[in-house]
Amino acid sequence: MSEAGELHKAETFKFRAIGYVENEFSEPTKPDTLAAWPSRIVLAPELLEGLTGLEPGMALLVVFVFHRAEGYSLLQHPRGDRNRPKRGVFALRSPNRPNPIGVTEVELLTIEGNILTVHGLDALDGTPVLDLKPV
Amino acid sequence: MSEAGELHKAETFKFRAIGYVENEFSEPTKPDTLAAWPSRIVLAPELLEGLTGLEPGMALLVVFVFHRAEGYSLLQHPRGDRNRPKRGVFALRSPNRPNPIGVTEVELLTIEGNILTVHGLDALDGTPVLDLKPV
Repeated sequence: MSEAGELHKAETFKFRAIGYVENEFSEPTKPDTLAAWPSRIVLAPELLEGLTGLEPGMALLVVFVFHRAEGYSLLQHPRGDRNRPKRGVFALRSPNRPNPIGVTEVELLTIEGNILTVHGLDALDGTPVLDLKPV
Repeated sequence: MSEAGELHKAETFKFRAIGYVENEFSEPTKPDTLAAWPSRIVLAPELLEGLTGLEPGMALLVVFVFHRAEGYSLLQHPRGDRNRPKRGVFALRSPNRPNPIGVTEVELLTIEGNILTVHGLDALDGTPVLDLKPV
């Protein structure tokens, strides 16, 4: 069993964007609005072979960086609504978290070369993508 | 629309472990075996408040680092089975991927202080955890 305090030796990990999101929303926008419109994921061309086996209609997990997030609180009002009591950040999907990583399930609509069009992604234009996984 | 090659300016991002996995499996083990046993997630004590609102029985996404993964191929045999044709890494859950990030849905069994016991986590002992999110 770990001792309290041991986590101070927590390691850091470096990741590189595998691609970027393109859509019409470059400024902070409600997740439901974002997810209602298709987005494109432009994959790094050198990773193209990694898409082999993906087909339109499949569900994918998109792992991305909340690149516009600035800092975080451990306790936050859900969706910033001050009428709702604060909750812990690990009980929320807020972009303002210790590691600003987002994970969203999307539907793959089309693949054209290194460009995937997806439905359901709640990420802004220019969002760095870290990974794609089958659901 | 992005030009081919633009991704060569891909940014890097640094994340810090928020905690570590503890279980009986320190050597590479089949995901199904790992997921069949409970694991503990020991959260950094200074992040304890972030658990406020989590309750036993809830489903959580655990975002973690495949810390034992070494490199990757864009095309891989599913589960390393040479009898199955190769697929792209983004169509697989393989730990050997451009960014070795894992995402698994688990059931939260208990919370005792900064220690969460979960069912369904396919991660080895010592795995660095990057995030917890409600499903």
